[in-house]
Amino acid sequence: MFASDVYAAAERIRPFVHRTPVMTSQRLDEMAGARLFFKCENFQVGGAFKARGAFNAVLSLQEEAAARGVATHSSGNHGAALALAARTRGIPAWVVVPRDASGFKRRAIERYGARVVECEPGLSNREQSLAALVAECGATVVHPYDDDRVIAGQGTVACELLDQVSGLDMLLSPVGGGGLLSGCALVARDRRPDMRVVAGEPAGADDCWQSMQSGRRVRLEQVDTVADGLRASIGARNWALISTLVDEVVRVEEAEIVAAMRLVWEVLKIVIEPSSAVPLAALLSGRMAARGARVGVVVSGGNVDLDTLPGLLSTAGAGFRL
Amino acid sequence: MFASDVYAAAERIRPFVHRTPVMTSQRLDEMAGARLFFKCENFQVGGAFKARGAFNAVLSLQEEAAARGVATHSSGNHGAALALAARTRGIPAWVVVPRDASGFKRRAIERYGARVVECEPGLSNREQSLAALVAECGATVVHPYDDDRVIAGQGTVACELLDQVSGLDMLLSPVGGGGLLSGCALVARDRRPDMRVVAGEPAGADDCWQSMQSGRRVRLEQVDTVADGLRASIGARNWALISTLVDEVVRVEEAEIVAAMRLVWEVLKIVIEPSSAVPLAALLSGRMAARGARVGVVVSGGNVDLDTLPGLLSTAGAGFRL
Repeated sequence: MFASDVYAAAERIRPFVHRTPVMTSQRLDEMAGARLFFKCENFQVGGAFKARGAFNAVLSLQEEAAARGVATHSSGNHGAALALAARTRGIPAWVVVPRDASGFKRRAIERYGARVVECEPGLSNREQSLAALVAECGATVVHPYDDDRVIAGQGTVACELLDQVSGLDMLLSPVGGGGLLSGCALVARDRRPDMRVVAGEPAGADDCWQSMQSGRRVRLEQVDTVADGLRASIGARNWALISTLVDEVVRVEEAEIVAAMRLVWEVLKIVIEPSSAVPLAALLSGRMAARGARVGVVVSGGNVDLDTLPGLLSTAGAGFRL
Repeated sequence: MFASDVYAAAERIRPFVHRTPVMTSQRLDEMAGARLFFKCENFQVGGAFKARGAFNAVLSLQEEAAARGVATHSSGNHGAALALAARTRGIPAWVVVPRDASGFKRRAIERYGARVVECEPGLSNREQSLAALVAECGATVVHPYDDDRVIAGQGTVACELLDQVSGLDMLLSPVGGGGLLSGCALVARDRRPDMRVVAGEPAGADDCWQSMQSGRRVRLEQVDTVADGLRASIGARNWALISTLVDEVVRVEEAEIVAAMRLVWEVLKIVIEPSSAVPLAALLSGRMAARGARVGVVVSGGNVDLDTLPGLLSTAGAGFRL
């Protein structure tokens, strides 16, 4: 893959996605000791950056394949984004959803018109259900992150951010499966070779950090984090890019994630999901060097289930002072 | 007062306040059966429209009076806004805060450098403490809403909104003390005489609605609403303008306010305070005629105490379907 794939994706998806705003806050700058530029993908179509990759994948399909539809397994934002992209192109979409997925995200998938196929929880069950499904209907599988078209789409976040903010020293993104991080890293390295590319990751799902330490891709069987968008282990294509393009992965604790999320809600007045707070949590943790830097911070999405929020908010008590 | 006072205020405060964005949502439009344009004062300096009136009042002062400082009583956003405006001009500010005010809003007042003077709860105690204070220090009192300079400042919300969105049929604002509503009504009537000006008000603090019904200003001793920014009764100057310029006041129930607030958080991905949800609650209640109209909706602020949020969110159950 090349940065040019991302630039082509940017042209392809432009009519269908938002050029999301960049927000700043003097108060957060003072807390972080750096100049922060928040790229607000919570305002993206569907409430998360996932629309970029999904639209790029769906729009890249040849007519004949497109007519048979697309399919994926997802308990989260990718399923909704793929449903939306398929509906926009007028083709069918199937989304395999584990029985224990949140009703909130499942409703979003259904609202965008996808057919939901329920399966038992666990990655292997999800993959088996998806395989059985596509064997029957002939739909094209669009993986949530381990897919070149998806990676190229997610990378358009960095294209826009680098157009919107000059002189960035660092790009800071969350990492789950690695679609967003690998796509953005491609762009950052191409356009600004001297820019640092750093990822924040929950300590309870630190496969990317472990992979960087050991030099080979680690997959975790058990993860535990409130950041529901970052529970996946990084994909093979993503690791190939991340291992060569990313400078550093910083781990953060659960209480730091919740505190950073609350802080963004309170100061920026925007609703972000826990996964999106991970980069700011990394900045405020003191475990990464960013003092005085101009940092582009990717706010990945804003899909929070407000019904489960009360319990979430009550777990506060981070290591850093608010 | 004239609309020209508002236009002068707009020039005066321009360097110090944000031109806040206008947001739209297809999903909310469909729910309301109207085209909604949300003027997002939650992104204003200090997190609420109150900065506009406070800056206009502070910047209007002659040098000698300014040097003696400003003072007010406030349990909410006005106190913080006045503190910020005073700090910006480099003059002292005193804010009388009732002992039972939320620590959250009190901390905002202190953060902006005002001297907090505690008093017993209740309007008369607040007024007495303020009178004693200014007798001593000679500061100029800036009332939260019953003040021409404040009304002119708040009206600049409508100036911007009418510049940002063409062809509005209706302006819809919350009403508490009436500063925002009366200032905006002045502008709407001047620039678009045929535009409807409507206010949403909590049924539990419906002094403005009662005043419109009886044709004379009603003040309430007891109010009960989650919309903490709308508990005040309308001021004399505000009523003089509202009674002649405003078409309609629509009352909403508590559960409708909470549900509308949640809806904005979930769909627009912005943090708004309960008071700011009152206009949308009115639109969705079915108790006002707006079908097919282009409606400018003033989102007044985003200062929510997240510590008290869990209890707040759990009171859901509105009359309209989400």
